[in-house]
Amino acid sequence: MSARIADSAMYGHLWGTPAVRAVFEESARLQSWLEVLAALARAQAAEGVVPAEAAETITENARVELLDLDLVAEQTRLTGHSTLGLIRALEQVLPPQVHQHVYVGATVQDLTDTWTSLALRAVGSEVWRDLRRVEAALLDLAERHRDTVLAGRTHGQPGAPVTFGWKAAGWADEVRRHLDRLREGAPRWLVGQLGGGVGTLSALGPAGIDVRRRFCAELGLGDPGISWLAARDRVAEVGAVLAMVTGTLARIGGEVYELQRPEVGELREPTRDEVVGSITMPHKRNPELSEHLDTLARLARANAGVLLEGMVGQHERDGRSWKAEWVALPEVCLLTSTALQFAVYLLEGLEVDREAMLGNLDSYTGSERALALLTPRLGRHAARSALQTALAHGRASGTPMDVALREAGLQPPEDTGASPVDTGAAGAMVDLVVARARAARAQESQTWP
Amino acid sequence: MSARIADSAMYGHLWGTPAVRAVFEESARLQSWLEVLAALARAQAAEGVVPAEAAETITENARVELLDLDLVAEQTRLTGHSTLGLIRALEQVLPPQVHQHVYVGATVQDLTDTWTSLALRAVGSEVWRDLRRVEAALLDLAERHRDTVLAGRTHGQPGAPVTFGWKAAGWADEVRRHLDRLREGAPRWLVGQLGGGVGTLSALGPAGIDVRRRFCAELGLGDPGISWLAARDRVAEVGAVLAMVTGTLARIGGEVYELQRPEVGELREPTRDEVVGSITMPHKRNPELSEHLDTLARLARANAGVLLEGMVGQHERDGRSWKAEWVALPEVCLLTSTALQFAVYLLEGLEVDREAMLGNLDSYTGSERALALLTPRLGRHAARSALQTALAHGRASGTPMDVALREAGLQPPEDTGASPVDTGAAGAMVDLVVARARAARAQESQTWP
Amino acid sequence: MSARIADSAMYGHLWGTPAVRAVFEESARLQSWLEVLAALARAQAAEGVVPAEAAETITENARVELLDLDLVAEQTRLTGHSTLGLIRALEQVLPPQVHQHVYVGATVQDLTDTWTSLALRAVGSEVWRDLRRVEAALLDLAERHRDTVLAGRTHGQPGAPVTFGWKAAGWADEVRRHLDRLREGAPRWLVGQLGGGVGTLSALGPAGIDVRRRFCAELGLGDPGISWLAARDRVAEVGAVLAMVTGTLARIGGEVYELQRPEVGELREPTRDEVVGSITMPHKRNPELSEHLDTLARLARANAGVLLEGMVGQHERDGRSWKAEWVALPEVCLLTSTALQFAVYLLEGLEVDREAMLGNLDSYTGSERALALLTPRLGRHAARSALQTALAHGRASGTPMDVALREAGLQPPEDTGASPVDTGAAGAMVDLVVARARAARAQESQTWP
Amino acid sequence: MSARIADSAMYGHLWGTPAVRAVFEESARLQSWLEVLAALARAQAAEGVVPAEAAETITENARVELLDLDLVAEQTRLTGHSTLGLIRALEQVLPPQVHQHVYVGATVQDLTDTWTSLALRAVGSEVWRDLRRVEAALLDLAERHRDTVLAGRTHGQPGAPVTFGWKAAGWADEVRRHLDRLREGAPRWLVGQLGGGVGTLSALGPAGIDVRRRFCAELGLGDPGISWLAARDRVAEVGAVLAMVTGTLARIGGEVYELQRPEVGELREPTRDEVVGSITMPHKRNPELSEHLDTLARLARANAGVLLEGMVGQHERDGRSWKAEWVALPEVCLLTSTALQFAVYLLEGLEVDREAMLGNLDSYTGSERALALLTPRLGRHAARSALQTALAHGRASGTPMDVALREAGLQPPEDTGASPVDTGAAGAMVDLVVARARAARAQESQTWP
Repeated sequence: MSARIADSAMYGHLWGTPAVRAVFEESARLQSWLEVLAALARAQAAEGVVPAEAAETITENARVELLDLDLVAEQTRLTGHSTLGLIRALEQVLPPQVHQHVYVGATVQDLTDTWTSLALRAVGSEVWRDLRRVEAALLDLAERHRDTVLAGRTHGQPGAPVTFGWKAAGWADEVRRHLDRLREGAPRWLVGQLGGGVGTLSALGPAGIDVRRRFCAELGLGDPGISWLAARDRVAEVGAVLAMVTGTLARIGGEVYELQRPEVGELREPTRDEVVGSITMPHKRNPELSEHLDTLARLARANAGVLLEGMVGQHERDGRSWKAEWVALPEVCLLTSTALQFAVYLLEGLEVDREAMLGNLDSYTGSERALALLTPRLGRHAARSALQTALAHGRASGTPMDVALREAGLQPPEDTGASPVDTGAAGAMVDLVVARARAARAQESQTWP
Repeated sequence: MSARIADSAMYGHLWGTPAVRAVFEESARLQSWLEVLAALARAQAAEGVVPAEAAETITENARVELLDLDLVAEQTRLTGHSTLGLIRALEQVLPPQVHQHVYVGATVQDLTDTWTSLALRAVGSEVWRDLRRVEAALLDLAERHRDTVLAGRTHGQPGAPVTFGWKAAGWADEVRRHLDRLREGAPRWLVGQLGGGVGTLSALGPAGIDVRRRFCAELGLGDPGISWLAARDRVAEVGAVLAMVTGTLARIGGEVYELQRPEVGELREPTRDEVVGSITMPHKRNPELSEHLDTLARLARANAGVLLEGMVGQHERDGRSWKAEWVALPEVCLLTSTALQFAVYLLEGLEVDREAMLGNLDSYTGSERALALLTPRLGRHAARSALQTALAHGRASGTPMDVALREAGLQPPEDTGASPVDTGAAGAMVDLVVARARAARAQESQTWP
Repeated sequence: MSARIADSAMYGHLWGTPAVRAVFEESARLQSWLEVLAALARAQAAEGVVPAEAAETITENARVELLDLDLVAEQTRLTGHSTLGLIRALEQVLPPQVHQHVYVGATVQDLTDTWTSLALRAVGSEVWRDLRRVEAALLDLAERHRDTVLAGRTHGQPGAPVTFGWKAAGWADEVRRHLDRLREGAPRWLVGQLGGGVGTLSALGPAGIDVRRRFCAELGLGDPGISWLAARDRVAEVGAVLAMVTGTLARIGGEVYELQRPEVGELREPTRDEVVGSITMPHKRNPELSEHLDTLARLARANAGVLLEGMVGQHERDGRSWKAEWVALPEVCLLTSTALQFAVYLLEGLEVDREAMLGNLDSYTGSERALALLTPRLGRHAARSALQTALAHGRASGTPMDVALREAGLQPPEDTGASPVDTGAAGAMVDLVVARARAARAQESQTWP
Repeated sequence: MSARIADSAMYGHLWGTPAVRAVFEESARLQSWLEVLAALARAQAAEGVVPAEAAETITENARVELLDLDLVAEQTRLTGHSTLGLIRALEQVLPPQVHQHVYVGATVQDLTDTWTSLALRAVGSEVWRDLRRVEAALLDLAERHRDTVLAGRTHGQPGAPVTFGWKAAGWADEVRRHLDRLREGAPRWLVGQLGGGVGTLSALGPAGIDVRRRFCAELGLGDPGISWLAARDRVAEVGAVLAMVTGTLARIGGEVYELQRPEVGELREPTRDEVVGSITMPHKRNPELSEHLDTLARLARANAGVLLEGMVGQHERDGRSWKAEWVALPEVCLLTSTALQFAVYLLEGLEVDREAMLGNLDSYTGSERALALLTPRLGRHAARSALQTALAHGRASGTPMDVALREAGLQPPEDTGASPVDTGAAGAMVDLVVARARAARAQESQTWP
């Protein structure tokens, strides 16, 4: 029985992807914890801390399907200890003589932090792949619409022209910076944890450091050098980067949301025939995907904030920070991966209405071109002033260009209508961004890290 | 399969209470939605908008166990519409001639917002009851420990004496203010929503306002006067008040956490024999309840922040704000109710160590008393200065009182040791706070609102 | 030299009002602190704790213009003590025999918290007045535009009609709830603080409680019953309420921002001739006021979050929470008061374009009316289905009504164009909201609290 | 007149450093804007867009002390335009024929964003230097106290031993990761902005891209490739990294705060003789620096949150996000630099009490050693169980070791007292962390970027 809408049968798809759910779901988490325990035993066997046969037996039995999960849950609640239930259930399936070789010298956080790194590796790999798909879709839009003209807008007001490809290139460039952040962060984030009670590896004797190195290597993680039980900057950074990713997607979604207003009508998100926007207002086509990107970003930010706050922990372990992570870190991962999948769908199917873009540009802007036209005749200051006066009084009767010319007592030059819209270096910037993104894509791995 | 630790079989009890889970759990939500639909039909029947028999039939069939929940989920996902799945499943169990009388003139938010108010009524009633239990426990501590002396502490440093009852009274007074906030908020929060598509009740003709009034009355909710589809201040306020409640509990928890340090040893939270603090460090008795109150408060604040941000919605419905509420509002309710139950357990079983309190007071404070002793002999400025000098140099060799007297070349007056510790008006403040709380409790309802 | 843009000569007006700046400005704060010290002396004189002449002398000299402010600053920095600089500077202007009667039995927070309440009283009075001005402007809009029809919008998409007065009434109702919150909060918030070192009033002997009562009465504040040095819920609540106020104003601003898009063109914020939206795009008329309301709300929320976090303080004083308040509380007050002044100006001068509203309604909506027209001929389900199909394929060629009729093979009934737009109970809701607001306004004080 | 305590003569030093104040102070900002304008003119001259003499004249006159700052402020407020006041004041001091060559093709954000990058370079250079000083102090502590034993603490409870050097090494390692983040972020953050009205460089004709490249090079900034007017991830990332830096410092401060409790007494922050902790409680020595680190981190987080939220901007410029940056970005810079200076002072003068550390270890821990002692005699499970029972009942009468032995009916082996405390691999981890930090320090620049 889930009390969270995130796991609702009706709405759960809005708050998680199957792949990332599968990472954080309880039995998967337990399986991963078991694998961490097995890796620990093998590392210890290699260093002579436990017998090799014990490590083998543990590895063979480190399978969640063998465990009595009710016992795990019951013992966890009974003891109030985060992993003792698991240990007891595991001991149940192991021969007695192996019991003493399970979880030797380790502490709860050795399990949970190492698991966190493993989970982040899986999540990061999803994020990397989907972020690259978002980038691919954006680069494609950038190229296809390199010269698709529309009004640039500042403060919500249409102004001088830009191209839609240039917009998309700006988004793609932002996404590329996130890919850079992920790449740079990986070696910082993907490290194991092994230290025992307070983090000194004291229960492992002189072999401690070597066991840790092998343990991390067994799991494909980096060695941290020093225990990081209360050093949560890694986790905070992951939260910040993922929240930033959702911020970018929310920005893209917001653009679609606004430009899909029928009064603007320049963009439209893809839909399926079965989708019902409103029962009573059948004409409505709601930008549900786009707006949901914003919803997800809000929640991601809130959870990232919890992780950031969690950096200020006390001593060698602070349960306050740490348990807040238990909620906030999976949450930000789930939200981000969901946002990415929505964004891929949105961008791969985005409908761009070139006529509407051009129409709005003509209808609502043009003063820049009018200014350019008037300046050589009236001088820069006088032209601007004439144009402002004209626009203030005559807005209702024509486009800014019409008004400006009429009020300034000028005839439109023959070529006014035909003059190409000047989008400056927009195309050149698109080329630059696309080229460097394509070069980076060609060089980098399709998988992360 | 839940990917949220909040629903984990192992750890779920840390993140929700059975009673509040039961409010937000999917089939309970659907049942409540059905009851809202039935109330709507009855209100419409009373105003002649639908036939009385239709309302009766709908009411009889408004039972979640009759519905095909798979169909609900499937149609919800298929149409992307938040309630169409439910409507279709309900229609399945209704005679065809009744179909057209279901959900007449209503919109999704009429269902969800009205349900939210019903859910808040249920949650608020839990919160009210448990907050009063917390208050009762605190008043009891205040009375029992009215004269239990311990060091007051500022900036983490022990100073002049206070009493533990006075501390508890300060907490109780804060809790009382939350009860006031809940009482004042109730009529603002517990209102229905009915408006149809954009909120004007247009589909109900002239009867609209009357249908709404009856509809709200049927459900025991207030009439809102005007649709509040995009006016989310109520929800934001609920979030803020609940987050403040958790803030108070976290403050109490923090006090226990700090005073339970064995170096201080003045308080100890209750525990059970089965609880295992640390496998490798058996002496450890961790303040798990206390620290968890802080964890819950962090998450509650983060979700309250989402609700506050959600006030800035667009137009007649803003899916960005609204869907973020779907997650954040239940979350803050679940977290708060959990915190309250932890706090009740903590406070009802709190162990207070009077000897340790007195011992710390003697060992680490006393300069105020020393100052009082020296002032008549040396004058106020000279006494303070002498004392500071003495303390700076002689800290290691005795209590502040010893040091001060010795360094000032004075003999301890005979009555130094025996002089009662002066806790000023602490007792009088306890009496005042307890009296007004008890008076308020006697007058108010044990249930909310 | 200010490093904060908030105090910039160029931009400072965006971040504070003169009246609220005057509350928090350093010499005003010091003057208020001096008055608190004087009130303390008078209360103590009345209870026989200090001589009446000393209290008189202190009261006469409690004038910031008499003090050496450089000394205050220097001694504050030198000692690291928040008020010792002030005490020393005050002693400088007092006869030596009075020195010992200054600040007797008080602590820093007695001064700063009591001052906070005094400052909040001044700020709250500004907020109350301006919030009522906002309400008045909104009620006026509600009445004037009770029947001004425009498209309701959900998810950014125009839908069934509403009236602009109904929108304004919804805002007004939200503002009224804030006025209720301010009224209810006042007795909780406006209390003095007096307790000495750790809050027990121990330095005042048996007179302590009576001195506190007189002290609070002298300043027109409530008596708190018990010291609240570390009970910061009052401050957190103030922050939450003010942040909610800014949230409402940002919502209104957001509506103007969106409806001022020239493609929509339904609202326009007032401007002055001298305002320059863009140097290079003279036609642009940016919704600067409206967007700034959102900016202010973001910052207010962030600061309110700091105050909420600050509730979790330790022991009898926690400098971490407390000093964060020093920044965040004035900030949220300054931001809110600024937002209110912007909002008053915005709403009192708001331009409403009835033609544009009607034009958009015709152009972009109508499916609800078409549905009403088709339903009697085709039945409810078939009508909806026909309409959806028609709209999906024929959007470009006419209004939803045109398309629906044409695709359904029907002739427009003669009265289609003339049929009044159905805004349901919008007008009735306006009447209800306006009536209750006017009744509340008539009964309540124009000043706060 | 400043209404912000941040600029108070009494308290301003708590909220800003002189060096970072000097970056953000108004005349410095205007000077930097002027230099940006001059660099623009020179870049344009080099590309033939403006005459070389105009660029020279502009460069010569780009000095804030020449401008009428009252005019700047007045015109800014009058026009509501962020830079028009500056342009008009600059034109006043330029020959008329140069006016038209000022600010050619640029927009407000070209100035402000480019200035932001310049300001960040200056701030980052301060942060880099001070963060390295913090690291140096920590490495020194790590080495000096490599073997200084104290109790590790989890959940606030003393447990198995660690060394203080190992704690410091953990902090140092976290600081090193921040240095890595700063180094990696630099090329992303330190880029110029030039695009004109909507960002396409259209006013500069075919030379646009080249002008931008030269413009950035003139200022020592990177070329962004594409305009980033609404792409605020850079700014959000800076905020996140700086907030993380303050989080680390707050963590260190929190450790000092807690370990400075006299009941613990293991650490003490440096102080000066003149500092007065409490007037009435002269013995108190408050951890003011340490607690202030937490205060600063809270505010930094709140401001970083505003920057993160600001990523979701609309179109080509969103004043809501952007103006919130005006406040939040300088704020987070000021707070971080202040925190760093406090931290340097704190760490360079930190007093470490080895005896107190050892004393607490003996008094409050030891069960791990007792367990090690009992295990060979009783077996692992029985030993743990015996120890737990003993500790639960006998806590008051001796150290955990005493209790355990007595209750288990054993005599202390002769070497109990003398057996060295086992801090496991703590020393080895210190060596590892120090070595890699020193290697990194040797290779990297002392200046940033």
